[in-house]
Amino acid sequence: MINQKYKDRLSKKNVIRRLAAFAHKRGQEIGYENVFDYSLGNPSVATPASYNEAVIDMYKTMDSMSLHGYSPSLGNTHVREVIADSLSRRFHLPYQAKHIFPTSGAAGAIAHAVRAVTAPGDTVLTFAPFFPEYTPYVNDTGAVLKVVPPDIPDFQINFTELERMLDENVSAVLINSPNNPSGAIYTEETLTRLSDFMNRKQKEYGHDIFLISDEPYREIVFDGRKCPYPSAFYDNTLSCYSFSKSMSLPGERIGYIAVNPKATDADILVDIFGQISRGIGHNCPASTSQLGIASVIDQTADLSVYETNMNLLYDALTDIGFEVVRPQGTFYIFPKALEEDAVAFSDKALEYDLILVPADNFGAPGYFRMAYCIDTDKVKRSIPVLRKFAHEVYGK
Amino acid sequence: MINQKYKDRLSKKNVIRRLAAFAHKRGQEIGYENVFDYSLGNPSVATPASYNEAVIDMYKTMDSMSLHGYSPSLGNTHVREVIADSLSRRFHLPYQAKHIFPTSGAAGAIAHAVRAVTAPGDTVLTFAPFFPEYTPYVNDTGAVLKVVPPDIPDFQINFTELERMLDENVSAVLINSPNNPSGAIYTEETLTRLSDFMNRKQKEYGHDIFLISDEPYREIVFDGRKCPYPSAFYDNTLSCYSFSKSMSLPGERIGYIAVNPKATDADILVDIFGQISRGIGHNCPASTSQLGIASVIDQTADLSVYETNMNLLYDALTDIGFEVVRPQGTFYIFPKALEEDAVAFSDKALEYDLILVPADNFGAPGYFRMAYCIDTDKVKRSIPVLRKFAHEVYGK
Repeated sequence: MINQKYKDRLSKKNVIRRLAAFAHKRGQEIGYENVFDYSLGNPSVATPASYNEAVIDMYKTMDSMSLHGYSPSLGNTHVREVIADSLSRRFHLPYQAKHIFPTSGAAGAIAHAVRAVTAPGDTVLTFAPFFPEYTPYVNDTGAVLKVVPPDIPDFQINFTELERMLDENVSAVLINSPNNPSGAIYTEETLTRLSDFMNRKQKEYGHDIFLISDEPYREIVFDGRKCPYPSAFYDNTLSCYSFSKSMSLPGERIGYIAVNPKATDADILVDIFGQISRGIGHNCPASTSQLGIASVIDQTADLSVYETNMNLLYDALTDIGFEVVRPQGTFYIFPKALEEDAVAFSDKALEYDLILVPADNFGAPGYFRMAYCIDTDKVKRSIPVLRKFAHEVYGK
Repeated sequence: MINQKYKDRLSKKNVIRRLAAFAHKRGQEIGYENVFDYSLGNPSVATPASYNEAVIDMYKTMDSMSLHGYSPSLGNTHVREVIADSLSRRFHLPYQAKHIFPTSGAAGAIAHAVRAVTAPGDTVLTFAPFFPEYTPYVNDTGAVLKVVPPDIPDFQINFTELERMLDENVSAVLINSPNNPSGAIYTEETLTRLSDFMNRKQKEYGHDIFLISDEPYREIVFDGRKCPYPSAFYDNTLSCYSFSKSMSLPGERIGYIAVNPKATDADILVDIFGQISRGIGHNCPASTSQLGIASVIDQTADLSVYETNMNLLYDALTDIGFEVVRPQGTFYIFPKALEEDAVAFSDKALEYDLILVPADNFGAPGYFRMAYCIDTDKVKRSIPVLRKFAHEVYGK
């Protein structure tokens, strides 16, 4: 009998998918270069040549079983060592290979992390605005995602609401800095205060509360910033990383979970992730992906285009009269819509071939997201169109 | 709070892992070439050069986003078309791309298939002897795996027991032909009888009963046989395939589910698999793996060594006096142990550096499995040792 839970989901409308379908259809009519598609977080810059060269070299020189054979069930040991060394060097925590678990991107990392540190029925808290896919990642484990309202306008943490919502049933808190969709980076002050609060609550309730830190945008930071590393602030942290954005290879499905060496059960959490993989039938990421990223660890694609695009858009949007916070990282910007109903706003923008994502299911109604991981030329061409739309429809 | 279910599993003894650890340790003492390690189903023949060449060519010629960008959430459309065409041509069912879902090997395929066609608490039946990893694949979905006792000595289907066990609570039947560990292939007669029985039960109970067919060894068949294709016998079939064995690339984690075009909800089952992937955070297999296998579809590695090894071992084992059925496919052979307790038998074999897996947790106590996906030279060298062991310990 077909599982009704999954079947029911098919009928649910997905805003991003609806907009992407519109963009595709409209692209066929007028040429996709004329559709100002800000809907998808799909990196546009090229994967570094060094990655491709490393993989080609592996294919030419490695023996078949070393290249294509089964990884050990916890991942390729050499790859785990390389990742542990890199993180230890960069963030000054004593990671070893036993703390690293290669995953299918940050998505796989988060879903594994939640399964490992919650029991069915437990609460996982996250903060608006948040990536909507957190809902299936968390709820399909049997835990329940609850969303702490946003801290407006800076998109740090609304501690008043957090203190109200973090009850005894909370096993994990899920954060994302730099943040999709707001582009905000949690400051050291925010992370210190969060850590102090969670440590106090752990003691009060007598059980662990894990911090699951989703960090795929860690390397995409602006204005010369560094992104504070959450695990350096709170011992019970599981850092979930993906090479999708920093290396521009989202299709290769490669990321990891790094267990803070001081976390509870730090020496067995990776074994638990291995047990979780057995149960979903997804063992390791592809051996080529694992070995490939290990050979170019600490490199990134040329990410400068995202800052260029951010500056163009931020300046234009503020000039037009949008309320918008300057992004500190990622490739998203998160302005307030020009009317209360962001869905209506987004629908009207479609008339101008502007694809803007209303943020209702990001937990921040009235806002919209623009993903500017697109050509700078298209960003430039979109600005007069944004201006025209705001003027004609909203008198800006 | 660490999830206790997964934590408890860490303390459970895994026979294959214990034997592999012994083989590794013993290999360091006397050289691994002197350990007759028949424990692991890890393909030893090389991946075809054509696969490696195709991947190198892709890396040299494709643009970055086509090669490394996100796949659509249901998999690369071209790859799905190539797989559908191949299956239609070979097995005469009208597959289209919409019936094909690329997965992380057969493991991911089975876990997705079970999640899609069962609700928590439903029963899934499989047949002894069976691959022990079926237990987590099925039970971690919330369904419950129950094992139909073996059909001795031919390892077809024990229909008496099946008829007793297939009650209203059964949503799926999980088969594996060619079979790990027995090497048996289900005959057309077996599949016809199974199909007739399941169709009758679907009608009687008024709900679907899906056949989940695990087929990673489909191309490894002996004595000029063909393996009957289960989906051609029963409409509600989900065929789960992996390229791990046929192409010798288990590390690349690439397989698929093929939905029989006449199955209930055949047009939406792949969408349901997509929803399941969202929930476990595992989107698609790596783009390189998907594109790679599409470029060499219908090819296989040189699989002839497995038949060579099978003949050597079958002849030797029967000559020594083992009760053993001649394998029809796979790279396993499944003799009866020389004493009732196969674990004790396996322990005694370790004294001779023979690594033989007792089949208690394959659902067939008293038997043992040998995985002969190893060098033919080592198989030959192992035969006098097997003979000596059987003679000295059991007087054979």
